[in-house]
Amino acid sequence: MSEKKNLNIGLIGYGFMGRTHSNAYCKVNNFFDLEYRPKLKAVCGRNEENAKAFANNWGYESIETDWKALIARDDIDAVDICTPNNTHSEIAIAAAKAGKMILCEKPLSMNAPEGEEMVKVIEEAGVANTVWYNYRRVPAVSLAKQLIDEGRLGKIFHYRANFLQDWTISSDLPQGGEALWRLDVNAAGSGVTGDLLAHCIDTALWLNGGITDVSAMTETFVKERMHSLTGKVEKVGIDDACSFMCHFGNGSLGLFESTRYARGHKALYTLEINGENASIRWDLHDLHRLEYFDHGDDPLVRGWRSVHVTDGDMPYMDKWWVPGLQIGYEHTFVHHVADFLDNLAKGTPTSPTFREALETQKVCDAVLNSASSRQWVNV
Amino acid sequence: MSEKKNLNIGLIGYGFMGRTHSNAYCKVNNFFDLEYRPKLKAVCGRNEENAKAFANNWGYESIETDWKALIARDDIDAVDICTPNNTHSEIAIAAAKAGKMILCEKPLSMNAPEGEEMVKVIEEAGVANTVWYNYRRVPAVSLAKQLIDEGRLGKIFHYRANFLQDWTISSDLPQGGEALWRLDVNAAGSGVTGDLLAHCIDTALWLNGGITDVSAMTETFVKERMHSLTGKVEKVGIDDACSFMCHFGNGSLGLFESTRYARGHKALYTLEINGENASIRWDLHDLHRLEYFDHGDDPLVRGWRSVHVTDGDMPYMDKWWVPGLQIGYEHTFVHHVADFLDNLAKGTPTSPTFREALETQKVCDAVLNSASSRQWVNV
Amino acid sequence: MSEKKNLNIGLIGYGFMGRTHSNAYCKVNNFFDLEYRPKLKAVCGRNEENAKAFANNWGYESIETDWKALIARDDIDAVDICTPNNTHSEIAIAAAKAGKMILCEKPLSMNAPEGEEMVKVIEEAGVANTVWYNYRRVPAVSLAKQLIDEGRLGKIFHYRANFLQDWTISSDLPQGGEALWRLDVNAAGSGVTGDLLAHCIDTALWLNGGITDVSAMTETFVKERMHSLTGKVEKVGIDDACSFMCHFGNGSLGLFESTRYARGHKALYTLEINGENASIRWDLHDLHRLEYFDHGDDPLVRGWRSVHVTDGDMPYMDKWWVPGLQIGYEHTFVHHVADFLDNLAKGTPTSPTFREALETQKVCDAVLNSASSRQWVNV
Amino acid sequence: MSEKKNLNIGLIGYGFMGRTHSNAYCKVNNFFDLEYRPKLKAVCGRNEENAKAFANNWGYESIETDWKALIARDDIDAVDICTPNNTHSEIAIAAAKAGKMILCEKPLSMNAPEGEEMVKVIEEAGVANTVWYNYRRVPAVSLAKQLIDEGRLGKIFHYRANFLQDWTISSDLPQGGEALWRLDVNAAGSGVTGDLLAHCIDTALWLNGGITDVSAMTETFVKERMHSLTGKVEKVGIDDACSFMCHFGNGSLGLFESTRYARGHKALYTLEINGENASIRWDLHDLHRLEYFDHGDDPLVRGWRSVHVTDGDMPYMDKWWVPGLQIGYEHTFVHHVADFLDNLAKGTPTSPTFREALETQKVCDAVLNSASSRQWVNV
Repeated sequence: MSEKKNLNIGLIGYGFMGRTHSNAYCKVNNFFDLEYRPKLKAVCGRNEENAKAFANNWGYESIETDWKALIARDDIDAVDICTPNNTHSEIAIAAAKAGKMILCEKPLSMNAPEGEEMVKVIEEAGVANTVWYNYRRVPAVSLAKQLIDEGRLGKIFHYRANFLQDWTISSDLPQGGEALWRLDVNAAGSGVTGDLLAHCIDTALWLNGGITDVSAMTETFVKERMHSLTGKVEKVGIDDACSFMCHFGNGSLGLFESTRYARGHKALYTLEINGENASIRWDLHDLHRLEYFDHGDDPLVRGWRSVHVTDGDMPYMDKWWVPGLQIGYEHTFVHHVADFLDNLAKGTPTSPTFREALETQKVCDAVLNSASSRQWVNV
Repeated sequence: MSEKKNLNIGLIGYGFMGRTHSNAYCKVNNFFDLEYRPKLKAVCGRNEENAKAFANNWGYESIETDWKALIARDDIDAVDICTPNNTHSEIAIAAAKAGKMILCEKPLSMNAPEGEEMVKVIEEAGVANTVWYNYRRVPAVSLAKQLIDEGRLGKIFHYRANFLQDWTISSDLPQGGEALWRLDVNAAGSGVTGDLLAHCIDTALWLNGGITDVSAMTETFVKERMHSLTGKVEKVGIDDACSFMCHFGNGSLGLFESTRYARGHKALYTLEINGENASIRWDLHDLHRLEYFDHGDDPLVRGWRSVHVTDGDMPYMDKWWVPGLQIGYEHTFVHHVADFLDNLAKGTPTSPTFREALETQKVCDAVLNSASSRQWVNV
Repeated sequence: MSEKKNLNIGLIGYGFMGRTHSNAYCKVNNFFDLEYRPKLKAVCGRNEENAKAFANNWGYESIETDWKALIARDDIDAVDICTPNNTHSEIAIAAAKAGKMILCEKPLSMNAPEGEEMVKVIEEAGVANTVWYNYRRVPAVSLAKQLIDEGRLGKIFHYRANFLQDWTISSDLPQGGEALWRLDVNAAGSGVTGDLLAHCIDTALWLNGGITDVSAMTETFVKERMHSLTGKVEKVGIDDACSFMCHFGNGSLGLFESTRYARGHKALYTLEINGENASIRWDLHDLHRLEYFDHGDDPLVRGWRSVHVTDGDMPYMDKWWVPGLQIGYEHTFVHHVADFLDNLAKGTPTSPTFREALETQKVCDAVLNSASSRQWVNV
Repeated sequence: MSEKKNLNIGLIGYGFMGRTHSNAYCKVNNFFDLEYRPKLKAVCGRNEENAKAFANNWGYESIETDWKALIARDDIDAVDICTPNNTHSEIAIAAAKAGKMILCEKPLSMNAPEGEEMVKVIEEAGVANTVWYNYRRVPAVSLAKQLIDEGRLGKIFHYRANFLQDWTISSDLPQGGEALWRLDVNAAGSGVTGDLLAHCIDTALWLNGGITDVSAMTETFVKERMHSLTGKVEKVGIDDACSFMCHFGNGSLGLFESTRYARGHKALYTLEINGENASIRWDLHDLHRLEYFDHGDDPLVRGWRSVHVTDGDMPYMDKWWVPGLQIGYEHTFVHHVADFLDNLAKGTPTSPTFREALETQKVCDAVLNSASSRQWVNV
């Protein structure tokens, strides 16, 4: 066990996602028996002082203030991209060309064409790659995937997902800058579509297969906000809310909604799948539970079952505690790293790869196109 | 109190809705102090034996087998229409011309133009009229209306509603005939749109105002079913599922879905409204509860409140039992009759009138048009 | 069907329970196909005006102001006792001696010895009798009984029940008089023990068999209250809260609690039974649901099932509406009357009989004795 | 920040609790800004190979196979005791005498007299000490404490707590040995009383003050089990279930239950406190939520609030993620270590100290005495 191979990590960006990823790298080998061990080689950020504090806090051996310098280093095996969306493409392409493995925050890119180019370069470079759509690795969601793959739901009729928040309701909130780049269309590419719906779409494609066409509606409730970078009140370019209807390739119907204006919901990602034989529901606010309805149950005692996903025979849960004791949000990243390291040892890809994440990007593009054209759009 | 005035009721149709209405007529004066008392004068049905049994069970004084005969009777004050949708128009128009008050089951009509004609005739006749959109009078829903009217929610951003069932999933189920006319497009006009979404739309218009435009999607999962009237396998003309997005006149976004293919849901009508200051949720499976979120609460103890709508200061609840003891589905009809009788005494209309119900019909038409044209359609 | 036999009812007391019973008599034949039909012959109350108003409202043909006069009438078949607890014994014994059937509100008596005498007389008289422990006939509770009788739970380890209220927390509330006789020990016999725990005990004996010994604790939080009858502040003699532990004859352990000082609970009667193979939970605030856990389920999708007890194959539910549409509190009384009338036709007793209700009384006595002696007491 | 002082940890025992503590030591400085940093100096276990594997996995610098050797080492500042209950006393006393700080797993001791001796020695030694009653530091429970301390609940009437499990129902389960020492009375001292109720009691004393007297009931459902150490079927000495009623010094009533025979519950620790003005509920299966009822709310929208304890202004939550993203079981130990290190810097004790934990032990003793004597017992 002490003979583990190091995987030298270079992290670019030290915001919220930098923390979740660093925590995952630190913990993964305490809980998973793996051939590889992440070694925190360097963190890169433009502000040297902040980068140093972050490095010090998490145990990174060194810092860089220019991501190109980080990529150029020989002692980096894998580059982890945690910067705003508008930088993913350039960094990923450069890293791939430098032969680095890449772990990229979601969404993959600003739009599908940009993503296409990234996939092309990365695949030519033949480097291991994955995109941090972390909610796939909530044990309850992984369990849903397993149940579907076992055929327990039967033919699928409906898929619906919401991602509801309420944190941007105030019109006093500015846009842009380090803290609020998600509200700046130039940094984020879109609003809730790329930030929240992208999660819903990634899970949906994984659980229910491809989407063929969409009809969408977006809204920007607050039309102008002070911009942190310019200090001026500027037009808001992002979507505050986005809904869409769609058809899946398997004949089922989809309904998706996301907003940052749903008072009372902090980060309520919910999904429900209705099959001929069984149905599944999940929500992020109680992420350790899966709701399951089995039509095959004796009708007298048939009802939605609330499954507390904490037993050792459930996905990833043999690594943690005992039945009844829940894990939380951060563990999804640990699972992602564990799978990445395990796949590295086996030489297999870690889903979602850039190519898989590109499919989500295509749906996002179709959604935004549909919203602006008020037409159904094929994916 | 013994000096009550009789309101002579003639009921047409003795199916499921005939029962709910008859029960309401029988109970209303036990619980509400009203000037009028419904008198069960006659029930009309084509099958004489069944009509007699129904009359005997509920205490109707007489029967008719031809609705025209019932309408022609001088001793009938109000006609209650509980027949399939494709008969509402002819009966209502004839009843209005005969000067009868009319209580018509929902949906008002097969489509909006038919409904326009009904409204025209009824208003010319000047007879009292109402449509049985009973869910408005679930105390929790009436309470929602009160909270909204008091301005507690503030500016509204989102309205969403679902009506999910699973009873038609089997392809062995036939269409048409007395029991299953709701699956026969000729009798029902549409599938879930007129049957279930009409409820959601009626409540939405009442709580959130007018809808301006819609984009809809429908699906018929089982394309052919044995027809009970012809004995042959025939094309299914109804929509098994229908979703739509819309804009409300107040600037909020709407998302609606209805289906009879959502495994695990019996009659799950849910609605949620997100306002700037507060949000509301309700579902029919626990109809005696209202969920309420108040952003003004102290943040440390802020959360969705589960309000058990059984106290005497809540709508209609002073008439029933004591706090903690719930009422059920059938009481919504009692409340509707109580309001109708009360309004009769005051000379005021009982909402929803035919004119108000026509608005729901217009949205339904727009939804079905949008689904077939794959275009946004103005209401 | 029109050949129904009348059962002439004489109701004594027209308070809250007078209303629930009258409603049940009025509705039962609309929903249940029975040989007998209750006929509301007379209501008896000391205040003539109130009695007339009640009779007028519910359709009682006549009134009496002296219960002895009512019992003396030849045209009364069954006497329904809805008066305070301290009058049950005298009225029931007189009625039995007059050969009347008796439907007596719970609890049976002020204490077990009084109840013993009542049972003795009633059984000697050979009249049909029942006590209105209505919660047995909540469909979800009846379903629990059915599941237990089918052996689905296996060996029982634990039974626990609570009945929590909060309506007497204010010390400004007076005791005694028509409205608040439940707070007056002379009228009620005890506080929450006879009022609330009696319900829990009746259900427990029915579902889980006899109780052998108890250890109890009571408390009176507000020691003195204004007495409505004397106008003076007087010592409060009732128990505001009562808890007890017990052993059942089947080897399982019981834990019971009742209080009127549990802020936030209106009438929260909950019960849970843990068996070797399965467990059951129910609560009155959502009385149309039964929670069921089946250890035999596939471990991957094992969890508490929330059963919406509204389907036609569930107890009593074929008489009401369709799946998903709930009934409420008042229906428990309709079911009780329906069973009473059905048993009358068959010549079988209606559970709980006076004899069965006496068992509950014995447990209540043991509980109160244990609380005052601070000793374990055998039942 | 890099100037942190090391606190050299010596861990004795490497079972389940060894993992939770080690994880806490590893993570705490990544999330909390503290003067001290735990340094994993040595782990001690009797099996050398296992100890080495554990050390390797968690990064302990060395191992010991004799706890006395560990205590004798100069380079150990604090001893963490994670061994079975019957060893706590000897180890703790020796460690104190050697001048080591002590972090001891709960329960403190086999019984109160043993605990008295431990407290005496530890306080004479003047070493920092704490007992790992981790559930105090679930953020929702810490929030409950804060709300109570702010006086929001008003006078307390009721406190109730359950700890329900179902993992020992099978009679095939052996007792004793490394894995199942909790079933062996010689190693554990008692069954659910010391294992589970001790948690409930610790929280209760913290939230609601001292307990004055108790009446308890215990049961051992499976009387004999194979003993892993002797290979023979032996009498089971532990309690499988234990309930007790009690009075608190503040005049409120308590009701506690614990069992390992409640089918359907994995580790369901629940508590509820009813005050004059407000009530609180919490359960471990959804540990990130606190239920709160405020009687001061507008009656029309008054109900139990489900507070998602994930916001930055809630206890400990500014250290973790963003609103809506939950933490889990393991974080309670991180919080405990963080508080211990923070207190170390300040020179203040970390609650619960040995002295505070002794109070829980006294209640446990009274409970067990009451159960065997069938008498109320003063604490």
